[in-house]
This record gives sequence, C-alpha cells and structure tokens, in this order.
Amino acid sequence: MNQVAARFQQYWKKHFNHLPAGNTHVILAVSGGIDSVVLAHLLHTTGITFSLAHGNFGLRGEESERDEAFVRNMGVQYGVEVHVQRFATAQWTQQQKVSIQEAARILRYTWFEQIWSRLPHAPRAVATAHHANDSMETLLMNFFRGTGISGLHGIQPVQGHIIRPLLFATRQEISSYAVQHQLQWVEDSSNASDKYTRNYFRLQLIPGLQQVFPEVEENLLQNIERFTEVEMLYRQAVSQQLEKLVEQKGAEQHIPIYKLLKATPLHTLLWEMIRPFQFTAAQTEEVKKLLTTGGQGSYITSATHRIIKNRNWLIIAPVKVEEAEHIIIEDFAGNSLFSQGSIQMQLSEQPMAEKEMQQPPQVGLFDADAIQFPLLLRPWKTGDYFYPLGMQKKKKINRFLIDLKLSATDKEKTWVLVMNEKIIWVVGRRIDNRFKVTPHTKRVLKLTYTAAK
Amino acid sequence: MNQVAARFQQYWKKHFNHLPAGNTHVILAVSGGIDSVVLAHLLHTTGITFSLAHGNFGLRGEESERDEAFVRNMGVQYGVEVHVQRFATAQWTQQQKVSIQEAARILRYTWFEQIWSRLPHAPRAVATAHHANDSMETLLMNFFRGTGISGLHGIQPVQGHIIRPLLFATRQEISSYAVQHQLQWVEDSSNASDKYTRNYFRLQLIPGLQQVFPEVEENLLQNIERFTEVEMLYRQAVSQQLEKLVEQKGAEQHIPIYKLLKATPLHTLLWEMIRPFQFTAAQTEEVKKLLTTGGQGSYITSATHRIIKNRNWLIIAPVKVEEAEHIIIEDFAGNSLFSQGSIQMQLSEQPMAEKEMQQPPQVGLFDADAIQFPLLLRPWKTGDYFYPLGMQKKKKINRFLIDLKLSATDKEKTWVLVMNEKIIWVVGRRIDNRFKVTPHTKRVLKLTYTAAK
Repeated sequence: MNQVAARFQQYWKKHFNHLPAGNTHVILAVSGGIDSVVLAHLLHTTGITFSLAHGNFGLRGEESERDEAFVRNMGVQYGVEVHVQRFATAQWTQQQKVSIQEAARILRYTWFEQIWSRLPHAPRAVATAHHANDSMETLLMNFFRGTGISGLHGIQPVQGHIIRPLLFATRQEISSYAVQHQLQWVEDSSNASDKYTRNYFRLQLIPGLQQVFPEVEENLLQNIERFTEVEMLYRQAVSQQLEKLVEQKGAEQHIPIYKLLKATPLHTLLWEMIRPFQFTAAQTEEVKKLLTTGGQGSYITSATHRIIKNRNWLIIAPVKVEEAEHIIIEDFAGNSLFSQGSIQMQLSEQPMAEKEMQQPPQVGLFDADAIQFPLLLRPWKTGDYFYPLGMQKKKKINRFLIDLKLSATDKEKTWVLVMNEKIIWVVGRRIDNRFKVTPHTKRVLKLTYTAAK
Repeated sequence: MNQVAARFQQYWKKHFNHLPAGNTHVILAVSGGIDSVVLAHLLHTTGITFSLAHGNFGLRGEESERDEAFVRNMGVQYGVEVHVQRFATAQWTQQQKVSIQEAARILRYTWFEQIWSRLPHAPRAVATAHHANDSMETLLMNFFRGTGISGLHGIQPVQGHIIRPLLFATRQEISSYAVQHQLQWVEDSSNASDKYTRNYFRLQLIPGLQQVFPEVEENLLQNIERFTEVEMLYRQAVSQQLEKLVEQKGAEQHIPIYKLLKATPLHTLLWEMIRPFQFTAAQTEEVKKLLTTGGQGSYITSATHRIIKNRNWLIIAPVKVEEAEHIIIEDFAGNSLFSQGSIQMQLSEQPMAEKEMQQPPQVGLFDADAIQFPLLLRPWKTGDYFYPLGMQKKKKINRFLIDLKLSATDKEKTWVLVMNEKIIWVVGRRIDNRFKVTPHTKRVLKLTYTAAK
C-alpha cells in the first residue's frame, strides 16, 4: 500500500476512534484545491463513505464558478452527494463589520454545522484538509503574534464535529501523492492576507531558518505535540488554583484579595480568572492595580461584566443587574434596576423646606454634595455597620434589623448602598446620619425604593 | 534623569530586591563591547559599587590583547578593581571535547563563581550585560531548536549568583545611550557560530517578520514574560501529578503501572518522570512501549539509571548496585554485587556427575539452557511464589520462609532471582524445581551466594 495511505489509516485510528472507518459518514469540505482533492482520494481508497461540501463565496468571479463546477464533477466521478452553498459574502461582511476572510470562515463553519446536524444520527463528522505545514504555519503565526500558550498547539485533529485527517502529511507528501495518482485539482489565484502570511513563512522564513537549523520543520512539528501537552498541564494547574481561589455565588465570582495576592504566578492567574468574562489581556494590569490601590467601589468593565473591589473581596459581577448582587451606580442617571426591586433617583438643585425632610423609609434624602459616585449596591453582610439617622453612635446592621423585628426572609433581602466603604443607606429602611439633608444642604439627592413585586 | 537610567533603577528594584543599591558589590563581566560598557556607566551613575571581571580567552590574537588593555583602562577611569584571567582555551577545549564556544562559556562562568566566593560576605552578585534582544534571540533559537517550554523563558534576570540588569533595554536603546554619553567601546570581529545565528535573527529574520507582523519584537518580549509564568504553572501541575504517582523507596522510584497509564498527558509526564535520571527525550517512547508490552525484567538504561518493569511496577533504579534494590543481571559476566552480598557466577559447558548435584543452599545449580537473560534480582515480596526444589506444587515464598523458621530480619533480607515473571532462586535458600539440573542437562550455570559481612 502507498505509504501515505498507510499513515492515513494509522492517523485515523489514533485520533478518530469514535468514527469507525466502516460505519461513518464524512462531510468533506472541499475547495477543489490539491489538499481536499487528495483527502477525497484517501477517503475513497480507505472505503470511508463521504459527501462533498463546497462553499461558493462568489469573491473570485469566473474562478469561483470554475471551482464549483470542478467540485460538482468530483461528486459525479466518486458517485457521492455534493452540497453546494452560495454565500452573499461581500454583503454579509459589510453588515457584520468583519474582514472578508473572517466572514468566509464564519459562514463556512456555520454551514458545515448545519449539514452535520441535518444528517441522520450515525457517526459523522466534517473533515477539512489541513496538513502538517498548515499547522506549523499556524503555530508560527500565533507565536509571532504573541497569543500565549494556547496559540502553540497548532491545528488540532479534532475540534467539536470537525476532524483534520490530513494533519500527519506535509505539503510535499500531498503533492507527491497527487502526482503519483494523477489527480486533478484547481489553483486558487486569490491573494488573501492569510495566504500572503503563509506564503511568507513557506517561501522565505522556513527556507532561511533551514540554513541555520536544518531540522527546523521537524522541530516545529514536535513543538506542536509538546506544547499541546504543556497546555494541558498548564490548564490543570490553572483550574486547580482558581478552584481554590474563586467562590461562585449565584452569577458572581467572589475572590478573597489576601489569598489572591499570595497566588503564584499572579499575572497569569489573574488573566485566566477574568478571561471568561470578556476582559482583555491588557486589563490584567488594571486588575492588579485595583487589588493594591483601588478604594471600595473601584471597578473595571468589560462588555458583559464588572470587576468590583468590595472591602477584602474582588467580585466579578454581570453588568445585567437582574443577575448581580453587586451593582455599581455610576452617576445620577435615572433608574437603576436591581434584583430585589428598583431605585428611582432624583436630583434637586435647590435646598428643600424643612417639612419635606420627613419622608417614609422607602425614600432616602441625601446631601448631594456629600455623595461621591460610584456607589455600590449590595446585600448587607455580617460586620456591616452604619450611623442610623438621628443617632451619633454607630450600629451593627444585624442589630438594627433585629430591632426592626423583620422576618428572616425580609432581613436576608435587605440591601445597603455603599460609598467608599461607608454605608449611606440601609435601602428602604433608614439612611445614615452622616449623609442626611441639613439646613445647610444646597442640593438634594432623592432616592425612592420600590420593592420587587 | 535619562530615561534608560530611570528604567534601569526600576528594573533593579523589581528584580534585585536582595541587592540594595547602596550596599552591594557587583562583579561586572565586561568584554569591552558596547553592552558591558553601558552597564558599567549605568552602575556608576546609580552609585552601585562594582569591579570589572575580564576573561582573556586568547582566541583573537592582537584583538584579545587590545580588549584586555581597554578594560584595564576602564578600571583606571572608574577607579575600580579589575580582575583579569587568561585562559588556555584552545587546549582546554581539546581536553574536554567541547566546542570553543561552550568551553569559553564554562571557563567564564566557573571563574565568575570563584571571584564571587572570594569576596567578603556582603550582598554581591556577578552581572552580565545581556539585553532584551539577546533574550528575544535566545527565545527564537530555542523555539526553532525545539527545546520545549523550558526554552521559552528567554534569558532570566536572576540565575544563582548571576544577575542581568540590562534585560529591560533593547539593542537600539543601548546604542543611543552610548552615543548620548559619548562612551567608547571595542568591537568584536569574531564570527562565532552563536554570533552567526544571532546575526541571522537580527539582520534577516526579525526585519522580514516585521513586514508581516509590525509588532513582532514587542510580541516576543511579551511571550517571554507569559511563557515564564506558563512554565511555572506547568511545573506545578507536573510536580503534583508525579508526587501522586511516584513512591520514593531508598534510592529507587517505584511507579504503579495501572495508575501511570491513567495519567494525562502521559507522554510529557513520563518524560518529566525520567528526565532527572539522565534519560533522553527520545527514550520516552521506549518507556511507553515498556509499559504496555515489555515482559518482566525488560529495562531501559541511561548513564546512571535503569528503568525496570517488575510485575505491575515501573522501577527507576541506580545502575550502581549498592544503592539499588532492583538489579539487572545482563549475562554470564562475572560477579554481580548487590546490597545484601554478592553472587558469583560460573558457567560449565559440560554435564555434571550426579553426586556434584548435591550442593549447600548458598549454591544454586541451574540448567543453563533453561535460563534466559536478563535476570532480575530483587527482595521477595508478598504474593511471590515458586516451586521449591523437589516439589511439584507451588509454594508462597512467605510460607516457605516461615517454614525455615527464619528471624524477622533474615526473612526481610531475603532476595529472589527472577526470570520473566518466574522466580528461579530464593537466593541462598532453595532453587526452583523447574530450572534444576537434570541428567539431560548439557550446560550448567552455578551461582554462589556470599552474604554481606
């Protein structure tokens, strides 16, 4: 048997054990280029059932049509089904504000998933014809872009429903195979930026390196295997440390700062901690600063989450307030919904008559000039205290709530509004004496609490 | 203050906290080149006490003498001590069979350590003038050589007594600093192979990459920081897994195979497990094979250790038998010392007279044609059994030793000689019936046991 065909079968057994050769349907993503043509031939030779999937992105005029016709003809020759999809790529690219390349990638893989899920429930997978040099080039690209350890595993043989059965073969071996079996294929004349970079690696960087390190290609392929395992061990250590550090509370992550500061290596652990919540790598430094210098209520925002420093805790809370227990009120702007009801805000620029100062407990009147934003809204907790309106002495919130003779549930549902470590309002119950409206008050902040229905 | 000088001080505080600027003596390794000249100037400017250490390797004739004179003159100008050492490099290189470059490196660092230890016990360190581009080039060199994760941390700021206070600065910044302060330096005209590789990175690879990835230098420097931390986490995970897998027994490591086979990722963990014992990365695959296919007594050797498969255990044992409890006897060759005594071997190519077959228990006579090497010598353990000479039924070794009425100590000190999972001799007590000498025996293997004094 041809040596490439034999290694193909070995590679298949090693990585696609869940897809027995005799009982699997492969949806082969085929451009008509040499790689996918060779993969089709190998599948056919090995006796694995397959169909062809060709996306026509309409970006290369005549050439796009030629490729589609070529793939349809392949289907006739192998006697297999051909799925063809035409995409309005240019239009979609404009709508989504992504690059043409990124658009084609998203459209293609979304469509593959659709074909996959339409097929009957037998072992099945989508196969792409990436080869060893593609993987090596991906490794190089990520390395020079600086994507960290997760960029160093190259292209993986299995990713969800996608498999890459040709990763064992080099570009050179694929080319020899195609010639040996007199296969026909089409050439892509486009000059996409990804292709440009890959051509630079292939035609300049690697040949140059081979002058200095003759074994460079083998070394890079070994790097891929090694770094895949290094990454696994890295992930084990990260998970284990984060598991010990982070307490999940509802939709929030709570991290004790004193513990966090002792974690090693701090920078990477912080990054892995905030990464799932749409923060960027650059924000890691900001979080580090927040840990040591930020006052209560300081925070950092991503598209979906906020990182809040609350006393000795770092809290990662969703921006969506219905889910959060730690809510930042950034300024006077209107309502701020929270999970136990809502607070209406109203700012008066004039002093107020004395009689107006008497208000029901669900209304809090504050000297606006004594209040600095942001404020933090959170459930009360053990150790909290404030100076109840009319008193000069501080009182534990716990004691205060007991004296109100609240039910256990009502007690538990009580929230406090905090400014820079000081509680200014036990929400809906009593304001703090230090922030009350006085005859000298020039501007009044009025907060009205409405309990949840 | 000059921006480079300011960053020098920041970098010092961050990495050399153990070396307070006002109370430290730095032994500066100085070639006379621009990097070490700039570092001397920065130390002087910052007010850190230093002396100069210059190795004259005598490899560049006139130029070597010029450099030494230049450094002596630097010492006069700064009013500091100059250590100079001349090395018979070429001669030493021949003796040690290493490359000139490697020889110079070893001689240089050994000498630095000597100067370091001769100094009084105040905070002190040897400083080398490696800079950011050196570190980047080391990273690239290791990456393309394929040295795995431990090659990706670049040059480290602290390594034992060596510090690298100039790592924060790029080659460009150092050059500007030298011009700005009108410093003088000497150029090294040699074309050492390391320099050749570095020049390739500097003059061809990096500029080429910058066309494709304009930020490549920054990204590589960030890679160094990231990978340093990735490596720390990697090491945490490796230690933790190996701690759970490996049982230290005297000078040996014992690893239960069923546990090992479940470890993930197996390849890297095996490699980290055997690496401290002088095995090579390539031997990892052999160990993997040994795990699943090797019979009892199969083994793999390094310069100092053997990896032995013994029933359900993998054992890493020193080759020096005094330290080992699992000793491989490879062939008929002479004595084999072990920790409880010694065994003499003698092979007779003739059959023997019947009366000679009666021997004291410390002598074992075997049918040499029934014996296949290697044999494994090890202490007996629970579960072991054999067919005592003269019996057709198997017997537990434990039972056998009890019936001999041995003391607990003697029982414990008993060793067995094993061939392919079968015990052929309870050493110094009784041989196995299956391997005895019979009238049909053509060649006789005679083993004589001498107990330890």
